[in-house]
Amino acid sequence: MRRTDRGNRGRRAPRNALYAQSGGATAVFNATACGVIEAARAARGRIGRLYAARDGILGVLHEELIDTTGESAAAIRALRETPGAAFGSCRYKLKGLEEDRAKYARLVDVLRAHDIGWFFYNGGNDSADTALKLSRISADMGYPLCTIGVPKTIDNDLVGTDCCPGFGSAAKYVATSIREAALDVASMASTSTRVFVLEVMGRHAGWLTAACGLAATRPGEAPHVLLFPELLFDEARFLAKVKRTVERVGFCVVAISEGLRDAQGRYLAEQGSVDAFGHRQLGGVAPLIAHLVQARLGYKQHWAVADYLQRAARHVAAKTDLEQAYALGRAAVRLGLQGHNAVMPVIERVSSQPYRWRIGQVALEVVANRERKLPRSFISADGFSITPACRRYLAPLIEGEAPPPFRHGLPSYARLRNRAVRRRLRVRFRG
Amino acid sequence: MRRTDRGNRGRRAPRNALYAQSGGATAVFNATACGVIEAARAARGRIGRLYAARDGILGVLHEELIDTTGESAAAIRALRETPGAAFGSCRYKLKGLEEDRAKYARLVDVLRAHDIGWFFYNGGNDSADTALKLSRISADMGYPLCTIGVPKTIDNDLVGTDCCPGFGSAAKYVATSIREAALDVASMASTSTRVFVLEVMGRHAGWLTAACGLAATRPGEAPHVLLFPELLFDEARFLAKVKRTVERVGFCVVAISEGLRDAQGRYLAEQGSVDAFGHRQLGGVAPLIAHLVQARLGYKQHWAVADYLQRAARHVAAKTDLEQAYALGRAAVRLGLQGHNAVMPVIERVSSQPYRWRIGQVALEVVANRERKLPRSFISADGFSITPACRRYLAPLIEGEAPPPFRHGLPSYARLRNRAVRRRLRVRFRG
Repeated sequence: MRRTDRGNRGRRAPRNALYAQSGGATAVFNATACGVIEAARAARGRIGRLYAARDGILGVLHEELIDTTGESAAAIRALRETPGAAFGSCRYKLKGLEEDRAKYARLVDVLRAHDIGWFFYNGGNDSADTALKLSRISADMGYPLCTIGVPKTIDNDLVGTDCCPGFGSAAKYVATSIREAALDVASMASTSTRVFVLEVMGRHAGWLTAACGLAATRPGEAPHVLLFPELLFDEARFLAKVKRTVERVGFCVVAISEGLRDAQGRYLAEQGSVDAFGHRQLGGVAPLIAHLVQARLGYKQHWAVADYLQRAARHVAAKTDLEQAYALGRAAVRLGLQGHNAVMPVIERVSSQPYRWRIGQVALEVVANRERKLPRSFISADGFSITPACRRYLAPLIEGEAPPPFRHGLPSYARLRNRAVRRRLRVRFRG
Repeated sequence: MRRTDRGNRGRRAPRNALYAQSGGATAVFNATACGVIEAARAARGRIGRLYAARDGILGVLHEELIDTTGESAAAIRALRETPGAAFGSCRYKLKGLEEDRAKYARLVDVLRAHDIGWFFYNGGNDSADTALKLSRISADMGYPLCTIGVPKTIDNDLVGTDCCPGFGSAAKYVATSIREAALDVASMASTSTRVFVLEVMGRHAGWLTAACGLAATRPGEAPHVLLFPELLFDEARFLAKVKRTVERVGFCVVAISEGLRDAQGRYLAEQGSVDAFGHRQLGGVAPLIAHLVQARLGYKQHWAVADYLQRAARHVAAKTDLEQAYALGRAAVRLGLQGHNAVMPVIERVSSQPYRWRIGQVALEVVANRERKLPRSFISADGFSITPACRRYLAPLIEGEAPPPFRHGLPSYARLRNRAVRRRLRVRFRG
C-alpha cells in the first residue's frame, strides 16, 4: 500500500462519478443502479467515489448527493432484487439551453464542486435530452465531463435500442395477470362476468398492450381484444368484436391502453366522468369501456386497473430484463472509462430464435425526445391483436424467472442507508 | 384378478361421487379439486366414478356432468398449479326448500340417475346452505346421499373454520402488490404521486384489507391507512390522517375495501359517478377516494383496482393456502367414506408461533348463510390499521411460495378434457 501511496503522490486523485435515476420506476431500475455501482467499484483507482443524486436531477440542482461508498457489497447486490428507485427519482423537465441556461449552469457548478468526471443518467427520452444538453453546456463552460445515458422505461418507446429495461418485467406481469384473470372469467362466464377489461400503461405506445397478447397461444384464448393507443377507438367495430367473441367463446377478455383515444383523437380517459363528490374524474379508461359494453350489449362486466402494480412487480420480473438492466449499468461505466461522451449503451438483438443480444451504443442525439411506437406491422389487420412478427419480437423479453427472496411470505426488499454527502456550495438552488 | 371378479359377483357396484365448484374462483380452488379427485381415486372399489358438475350446481340441474376418470394423474396433479375453476363454477342461489322444492327434487333426480352416493360441494356459505338443504331433501325423498361441504372463499368470511382456502393466496398477492407499489410511490413522491390507493375485494368483511397491512413491518411503512368495510367512512378523519402521513412520511399509501360505506351506511361505490357515455358508473371506490384526496388536499394521486387479478394470482400463491386447500379436498372424501353427512372439513389452528394446523369438521348448519367479519379487536383504535393480534392471525396464512411451472416466460396452466357424461334423464331442466 505504501508503494501505491507513494506512486500516487503528486498525481491527481481520480475524479468522482455521479449516478441519477429519472422518471417512473420499474421492477429492474435498481438492477441498473447495481450494475453502475459494482462496475464503478471495480474501477477503483480510475473512478473515485460514486455518488447518487437524491430524487434524480433535482438532487443535483439542490446539491443533495448520496455517497454510495458506505453501502456494503451485499446491500448493493440486493438492489438487483428491489423495485422502485433506491435513490429516488423525479419528473422534472429541463427546457432548452437558452430558456433554462441558469439551471444547466447550476448543474455544472454542483458537478464541479464535487469533482464529478462522469455523469450516468438513467431514464427515458427526456433524460437523454437533458444529458445531451448537459454535455454541451459543460463543454461550453470548459468543464470536462463525460455524460452517459442509461436506458430505462416500461413503455419500451426509446429509439436506438431493441428494447428498454423495465419493459420485459412489466410485460411479463401484464401477460401473466391477464392469463390468470381470464381463467377466472372463463370459470364463471355462464352465469356471471362475460367481459373483463384490464387497463395497462403506455400512453402513447402500445407495447404493454401488445404484451398482453402473449397470454394467448391458441385460437380463442384470452385476451380476445387489444385496444392500442396507436389506433383510434372505433366503438361500433369494438362492440361488434366483443359480441362475436362472447357468442363464440362464451366470454371476452379485453386489454386496453390507458392512452386510448376516440375518433377525434381525444383521450377517452380525459372525457371526465364526474364522481360522487362532484369532481371531474380523470383516468380509468377500463371502467369506461366496461360500462360501455354493459350498456350497449348487456353483458355483466368486471375491470381492473393495474397502475403502479405493473411497473413495480419485481416478484414476477423477467430474468432477461433483469440481466439486461444490470448489463447496461455496467456498460455505461465501461463507456465512460473508455472516454465516450453523450452516448447511451443499448440492447442490440442478434437473433430472436434462439434469443441472443449484445450491448451496443448510440449517440444521445438519436434517443433524445423521440418516441418509438408500435409499428403497424405488429398489429393485426383488424386492429385487435398482435401479429406473429410482434410475438417473435416480444416473446424473448419476458423469458426467465428471477424471484426476489421472500421473508415471512412477502418479498424482502433492500433499503440503503443513503448517507448524504456534505454540501460544498454556499448558494442554494431556488427552482 | 379373477378371484376379485368372482368375489364381486352379485355384490352391488360401488356408488359414484360428484364434485361441484361454487361461487368465485380462487388461486387454489383447483387444488381442492385435486385433493378430492386423488382421494376418490385412492378409494377405488369403495367409490365408483368421480364426476364433476359443469359450472357448479347448474351442471347438476342441467345434468351436465363431467367424467374425471379419463384424466391422467399428471393432469389432475397439475390442477394444484392452476387458478380458476377447472370444471366451471356459478353464482346460482337456490332459495328455501318450500320455494324451490322442484329444483331440489331435480337435483336428487339427477343424482339418482347417476347413482351418486357422495356429493362434495366446494364453496362459501351460500353453498353450505344449499348442500345442507340437499341433504335434507334427499333424506325426505328416501335417496341415500352423503353431502359434504368443502370450504372456499378469498373473503375468509366462513364461520367454523380458522381460515378459508383461497384467502391466504389473495392476501399474499395484495400485501406483495401494495409493498411493491409503495416502493414506486416512495421513489417519486417529491415531485409526483403523493397518495396511492389500492382497492381490494371483500364487500362485507375486511380480511383482505387487513392483509394489506402485513406489508408494513416498521413504523412509517406503507400501507399507512386501511379503510375497512366494518367501519363507516369518516371523510374528515380520513383526510386528516392522509395529510398527517404525507407531512411526516412524504407520501401516503391507502388500502381500501370495495365495500366501504359512508356515514349513512351506503356503499360509496354505488353512489355512481356518471361516465363519459352518460352511464351510471358502479364500482371503483379507489378512484373516488383518490380524487377526493386530490380535490381536498391537492395531492397528486394514483389508484389501482386489482379486481380478479387478486383472486386468480396463482403465480404468487401461498404454500400454506395451497396445502390447506388440497388437504381439505382429501379430508372431504375421507369424511364421506366414514359416512358423515351434512358436514364440512375445516382448518383448526393448533398454534400461531410456530404455525400448526389440523383438519377438523363442523356441521354445515354452523356454516350456512353466516358471515364472519373482521373482529373489532383486529382493527387499531383509530380504525386505520391492524393490531398485533390481527398480524399474528394473518401472518402464517401467507407463508411459503409454491410457484407454478413457467413456460416461455408465463405460468403454464393445466386444461382438462372435461369429457361429458351421457345424459340419462329424458326431462330437461328449465331454470
